[in-house]
Amino acid sequence: MKKSIFYHAGCPVCNEAEKEITTLINEQVELVHLGEESNRIMEAERQGVKSVPALVTPSGSVLHINYGASIADLKA
Amino acid sequence: MKKSIFYHAGCPVCNEAEKEITTLINEQVELVHLGEESNRIMEAERQGVKSVPALVTPSGSVLHINYGASIADLKA
Repeated sequence: MKKSIFYHAGCPVCNEAEKEITTLINEQVELVHLGEESNRIMEAERQGVKSVPALVTPSGSVLHINYGASIADLKA
Repeated sequence: MKKSIFYHAGCPVCNEAEKEITTLINEQVELVHLGEESNRIMEAERQGVKSVPALVTPSGSVLHINYGASIADLKA
């Protein structure tokens, strides 16, 4: 099986992301389309989501992945 | 089991990240510390890694997760 590679540099942000990503292996994920479910935008913001795509982990950490759009743009 | 929540807005970046993240569930991940394995910095750059932490998926997509440090900083 081909493996993913997680590159990091031992920095605090890296260590936190590493912990979250390795925990996520074997976890499930719920998909929320904020354009279609705009009633959940506030819920996302409350959890610290600044932009999408973003993954909120079971422990409450927010992983902002690349950059698609800011939450502010979704409310416009 | 508590689930992760993946927030998105249907944008191209979101759709790509969703596909990658859902594929990653049940996949394994290799951890590479570029501060300790500086001989792999070029390999990371070649795959499109601009900053760490970053995850290169089995299909070759680069997911930049939050922001810790730029690759340029690691070479300094």
